[in-house]
Amino acid sequence: MTIAQINTDRLLSFISQMAKIGATKNGGSNRQALTNEDRIGRDLFLDWCYAIGGVSRLDSIGNLFVRFEGKDPKKLPILMGSHLDTQPSGGKFDGVYGVLAALEVMSTLNDQDKMLYHPVEIVVWCNEEGSRFIPAMAGSGVFTGNLKQSDIYSAIDEEGISYFDALTATKQMGSHPCQAFPFSASLELHIEQGPILEAEQKSIGIVTGVQGMKWHQITLSGETTHAGPTPMSMRKDPIQAFITLLPKMYEKVSEYGDLARITIGKLTTIPSSTNTVPEHVIFSLDLRHPIQKTLEVMTEEVLNLCEEIPAMFSSEIELLWESPAREFDPRCIDVVRTAASDLNLSAMPIVSGAGHDSVYLSSIGPAGMIFVPCKDGISHNEKEHVEPEHLTSGANVLLHSLILLAEEKGE
Amino acid sequence: MTIAQINTDRLLSFISQMAKIGATKNGGSNRQALTNEDRIGRDLFLDWCYAIGGVSRLDSIGNLFVRFEGKDPKKLPILMGSHLDTQPSGGKFDGVYGVLAALEVMSTLNDQDKMLYHPVEIVVWCNEEGSRFIPAMAGSGVFTGNLKQSDIYSAIDEEGISYFDALTATKQMGSHPCQAFPFSASLELHIEQGPILEAEQKSIGIVTGVQGMKWHQITLSGETTHAGPTPMSMRKDPIQAFITLLPKMYEKVSEYGDLARITIGKLTTIPSSTNTVPEHVIFSLDLRHPIQKTLEVMTEEVLNLCEEIPAMFSSEIELLWESPAREFDPRCIDVVRTAASDLNLSAMPIVSGAGHDSVYLSSIGPAGMIFVPCKDGISHNEKEHVEPEHLTSGANVLLHSLILLAEEKGE
Repeated sequence: MTIAQINTDRLLSFISQMAKIGATKNGGSNRQALTNEDRIGRDLFLDWCYAIGGVSRLDSIGNLFVRFEGKDPKKLPILMGSHLDTQPSGGKFDGVYGVLAALEVMSTLNDQDKMLYHPVEIVVWCNEEGSRFIPAMAGSGVFTGNLKQSDIYSAIDEEGISYFDALTATKQMGSHPCQAFPFSASLELHIEQGPILEAEQKSIGIVTGVQGMKWHQITLSGETTHAGPTPMSMRKDPIQAFITLLPKMYEKVSEYGDLARITIGKLTTIPSSTNTVPEHVIFSLDLRHPIQKTLEVMTEEVLNLCEEIPAMFSSEIELLWESPAREFDPRCIDVVRTAASDLNLSAMPIVSGAGHDSVYLSSIGPAGMIFVPCKDGISHNEKEHVEPEHLTSGANVLLHSLILLAEEKGE
Repeated sequence: MTIAQINTDRLLSFISQMAKIGATKNGGSNRQALTNEDRIGRDLFLDWCYAIGGVSRLDSIGNLFVRFEGKDPKKLPILMGSHLDTQPSGGKFDGVYGVLAALEVMSTLNDQDKMLYHPVEIVVWCNEEGSRFIPAMAGSGVFTGNLKQSDIYSAIDEEGISYFDALTATKQMGSHPCQAFPFSASLELHIEQGPILEAEQKSIGIVTGVQGMKWHQITLSGETTHAGPTPMSMRKDPIQAFITLLPKMYEKVSEYGDLARITIGKLTTIPSSTNTVPEHVIFSLDLRHPIQKTLEVMTEEVLNLCEEIPAMFSSEIELLWESPAREFDPRCIDVVRTAASDLNLSAMPIVSGAGHDSVYLSSIGPAGMIFVPCKDGISHNEKEHVEPEHLTSGANVLLHSLILLAEEKGE
C-alpha cells in the first residue's frame, strides 16, 4: 500500500494567505469570532473548498460544514475540523491549522481523484476561543447539547453587541438548526500549545484524552488596618495566611505526579492600598488531572488545606467552573498511532491540557485528536510558531488516519 | 495651681454639629478637601471662633489660621491645629477632633477671661487626607517648604478639577502667601488610628515621633504559559517565587522588633487570567520604623532578599515614596507628659504610624502631638469611634499643655 502525501507548499500557502486576514503587526492574526475578518476568512476558506467540490452549509449557531461525498452515501460522515477564529493577539496556527490541514487533505485526495467510502465533512466550529463571546467552544457546545443556543445568542461582547446580532450581521446565521447528527468519527489536528512534544523531540502527539479541570475562587480573610500604627503581633494579615497555605497546596498537588497541575492565575487584595493591611486575599485556583476520579480526590485534599489556616483567619471557597476529564475514542487513538507509525514519524501519547471542540464532540460520538509541537509551547500569542516539517507531518497523519477510518468497510 | 477643665458637652456639640456637614448614612462624614461641604464646615468653625474673639486669615494654599492675641504680642505664636477635611467615607474624629478640641480649649480660656502670654493660632491645614487631591498633607507641606505650591495647584481630582480651581471656587484662596513664619511650638491632638492605647488601656499617648516609611513596588517575573499543557516541572511560575520570598521578608522584619512594620497592601498578577500561569507577580511593600538609620538598614536587608530567589526568576524593585522618621521636639513631648501626669491620666509614649501635618511642621520648628485611643484602632472609616471620656481627656491635656507652653516667661 502506497501512502499518499499532502502538498506542503499548498498547505503553507493556505496558512499564510489566511493569516493575512486580520494580520497583526507582530506577525499574528486577529480574527475574533463573528467579526468582519472572521467572515472574510471563512469566505476565503469556502472558495478553496468549492474549487475541489465541497458543498457548504451553516447552522443556526454559526458552525460551518463543508461536505465531500463518499462512495457509499449511506455511511456516516467522518468529521475533520477545528476553528478559524483567533484570540485578539492570536497566532497563525491555533485552530486554523486544523481546518486548513483538513482542506489540504481533501485537496490531496482530489489531486488523486480519490473518493473515500465515507463522506467527509470539514467543520469550522464557531467561537472556539471565547475571547469575544463567553463561553469558549460555543459552536461545538451547542451542537453537542452541552450548551444552550439561547444562552449563546444572548452573550454580549465588550461593545454590547450580542452573539445573535453578530451572527446575522456577518451572514453566518445558517438555515440548518444547530443539532447533533450521527458521525462515524471526528478528528481534530491541532498544535499542542504546550512544551512536551518539543522537549521530547516528537513530531506527533497521539492525544489520548483531555484533562479534567476545576476552577475555584478562594478568599482568605483577616482584618484590615492601617499599615503604620498596628504592631505586627496585633495584626490579622491574610497575606500571612496566603503564604502559609500556598506552599502546602503546591506540595499536595505534586504528590499526584507530573500529570497533576495547579495554577494561581488571578491574585488580588481588598482593599488594594499600599498603606493598608488587606481585609481579603482573593485568588483563583485551577486544578487539573486527566483522570476524573483522581482530580476529584486531589481537589478535595487541596481545598481541605484551607481548613488548616490559623483560626484568626477565615476562608471562603467558590466553585467557578469545571470540565470533566475525557478519554478519547480507542479506535480514533489507534488510527492516529497506526498512521504515525506507518509514516515513520516519532510519536508519543499525550493528554491535552487545553479545552478543544473535540472534548464536546467526544461526549456524543467517537472523537480523537492529533497534536504537533509548537515552538517553546507558546500559543495565544502572535509569536506562535510551528516548523513546516511538523505542519507537514501532522497533515500527513490526518490524511492517513482519515483513509484508515474512511476505507473501513464495517460501520 | 488649679487646673482648668474643658467643657465636655460643648466639645461633643462642636463635634456632632460638624459631623452633620457631609454626613454619610452610616454615621461618618464626607467633607473632602475644597468641596462645598469642606467650605461649609470651615464657615461653621469660623462662626464659633469669631464668637470668642478669633481673627482669621487664609493663605494661598487654603490653610486657615485663627489668631487669639496674647498678653505679650511680641511673643511667637503657639499653633494648635489639625485638619477638617475627611476621607470620602471618613469618620467624625480624624483631624476634626484636633481642630475642634483646640476651639474648645480657647473657648474654655475665654469662659475664664484668661489671656495667655503667647498669642495662639488655631490652624486648619488644607487637604491633609489627600483623598481628593494627591499628595496628602498638601497645606502643611507647602507651608513648611516640603512641597511646591505650583505642583499642588496643578493637582487634578477624579473629575478633572484642579486644586487651584477648587481653591478659588470655594473661596478658600487666601490673600496671604503660603509660607512659614516662626512659631513658639505646635501641638496637634489626634486620634491614634491604631490599637495600641486601647490594648494598653491608656487614655493619652505622648507622641515621641513618627515612623519613617519606605514604599517600594516589587515585580517578580517568570514565564507565562497555559495552565493546562505545561507540566509543573517545566514551569517558571512567579507565584512560587512570591511564596518563597514573602516568609523571608516577614521574618527579616520581625528581627527588628515590634516597632518595625511590613505591609503588603497591593498584590496582583499579569496577565490576570484563571487558566494562565502569570508572567509577573507585582506587590507593594510598605516598610516602617521610627528610627531612620534602622529603617535604612532593614529596608536594604529586606530588598536584598529579592536577590535570593531562584535564578529562573527575575525581580525588579521600584521606590515609590519615602518619608523619613522624625522625632518630635523634646520640650513639646515634656509638656504633654507633664500635663497628662498633672491631670492624673494614664499615659504612655507612642510612635505615630500614620503621617500627620505635624511631621512637616517638625521639619521647621518645635512640634508635638497628643493621641487618644479610638475604638478597635479603626479610622478612615464611618465606624470610627472615640469614647467621650477620651475626647475630654485629650482636650484637657491639650489645654494644660498649651498653658504650660504659653505661660513660660522666656522665649
